[in-house]
Amino acid sequence: MQNIPRTVFIISDGTGITAETFSHSILAQFETNFHQIRLPFVNTMDRARQALQEVNNNASKYGLKPIVFSTLVNQEINELIHSSNAMVMDMFHTFVAPLENELNLKSTHAMGRFHQNIETQSYKDRIEAINFSLAHDDGQSHKNLEDADVILVGVSRSGKTPTCLYLAMQYGIKSANYPLIPDDFERGTLPTELHKYRTKLFGLTIEPQRLSQIRNERRPGSKYASLENCRYEVNEAQSMMERENIPWLSSTHKSIEEISTTILQIIKSDKNLY
Amino acid sequence: MQNIPRTVFIISDGTGITAETFSHSILAQFETNFHQIRLPFVNTMDRARQALQEVNNNASKYGLKPIVFSTLVNQEINELIHSSNAMVMDMFHTFVAPLENELNLKSTHAMGRFHQNIETQSYKDRIEAINFSLAHDDGQSHKNLEDADVILVGVSRSGKTPTCLYLAMQYGIKSANYPLIPDDFERGTLPTELHKYRTKLFGLTIEPQRLSQIRNERRPGSKYASLENCRYEVNEAQSMMERENIPWLSSTHKSIEEISTTILQIIKSDKNLY
Repeated sequence: MQNIPRTVFIISDGTGITAETFSHSILAQFETNFHQIRLPFVNTMDRARQALQEVNNNASKYGLKPIVFSTLVNQEINELIHSSNAMVMDMFHTFVAPLENELNLKSTHAMGRFHQNIETQSYKDRIEAINFSLAHDDGQSHKNLEDADVILVGVSRSGKTPTCLYLAMQYGIKSANYPLIPDDFERGTLPTELHKYRTKLFGLTIEPQRLSQIRNERRPGSKYASLENCRYEVNEAQSMMERENIPWLSSTHKSIEEISTTILQIIKSDKNLY
Repeated sequence: MQNIPRTVFIISDGTGITAETFSHSILAQFETNFHQIRLPFVNTMDRARQALQEVNNNASKYGLKPIVFSTLVNQEINELIHSSNAMVMDMFHTFVAPLENELNLKSTHAMGRFHQNIETQSYKDRIEAINFSLAHDDGQSHKNLEDADVILVGVSRSGKTPTCLYLAMQYGIKSANYPLIPDDFERGTLPTELHKYRTKLFGLTIEPQRLSQIRNERRPGSKYASLENCRYEVNEAQSMMERENIPWLSSTHKSIEEISTTILQIIKSDKNLY
């Protein structure tokens, strides 16, 4: 019985993605296994009854209370889910009620507010930024480069592309990226196109060992992937960044979320992004 | 005084991105303005004291208690932030304490667990899926198409690319996308390459009006963007999806999060993605 993973339901009237990500983080604090099930779009009493049934069935089947993380704005739906045979972590009302007191304001209790509305400017900005980042991936285009909020530079496979896409998708930040290649190192200067955007540049570097490992997955045994070549490129790229006064960080041990957060901290002081 | 937006701090020992997204959703329930400031990487007592200072300065400056959403695992850091002149919404301990009781387990209180660890399989899967989706964007490559978890089809600008990237980035799902073009409609069949992957196909459609508007932003006044042509393409694409028995949905009023959630619900019943 000890080895049955506890079931965790994420029940939301929207996608439940934020609640799911949040509950992951909370549950990662416990050294045991969980079985997570997301029940999205629980925005009618019918769906709420189905969800209730599913939770209660799970409780009977395993003889263990499931854990429910809920973000349900509607009072009636919320009460129904609270009546389940589960431990309910009400992520919505736990915080909304004290905020109503502090702000001396009633919440709108509007469903759908909890998730992204595609009519908002911030949603449109995100989609536009994704398109921008795709069009300006890997130095593909110099068109409209002046519109970029940030231009990442670094050797091939240092993490520029996923970081750009993350910045676009999460924050609507238009980010381009530009590879630093052996030609640039021989010439000893930044690619010509970048000179006038110097203030937008941000560098990514990476440990040569890690770079060689990543490149070997793509082109096993190539000169491109060899540790010697990776050492050379990384060294040259770092020297160039220091010479040109480009802020940079190492992506070796950082997730795209962490890299993006650090970049934002730096570019935020110049631009008012929030 | 009524018009000063309340300051909301997101204080985290990691990136604070999840807490930020979550607090956005909660605050969207109130019809007033907030000024959000994220303070990431508060993982030492030094940084905690800086954060405390910033919160308290804000309180004095505006004569209003700031609101703090915190996800701080470390007890000492957490207590320091709780001592601030703010209303603290402790997103971490609020849920961890009751879970410890229910699970009869102590949490590890390990910092860093709260955010993505790049050494986990799920992180590696996400990065690999991003690369896969980029390589298989817009029918660019048929190589390794059999590795795709899902292949989105639809007319140009129906939302395939951002959805694929979101599925990859959030869930590590390898998604390819393939445009349906007038050639396919004239021939009256799916692109040849897709025949053997019929079970992986998922269709996106869009209202012709909305499509015409999106395409006009790209190529104003073109035949491609004309309402008449958009009507034709959308009609043909929908007929093809129905004929070929491809599940589909309309992206017109849906965010990439909502589209992705619906796709996951459908493909999940086949594959054990969780």
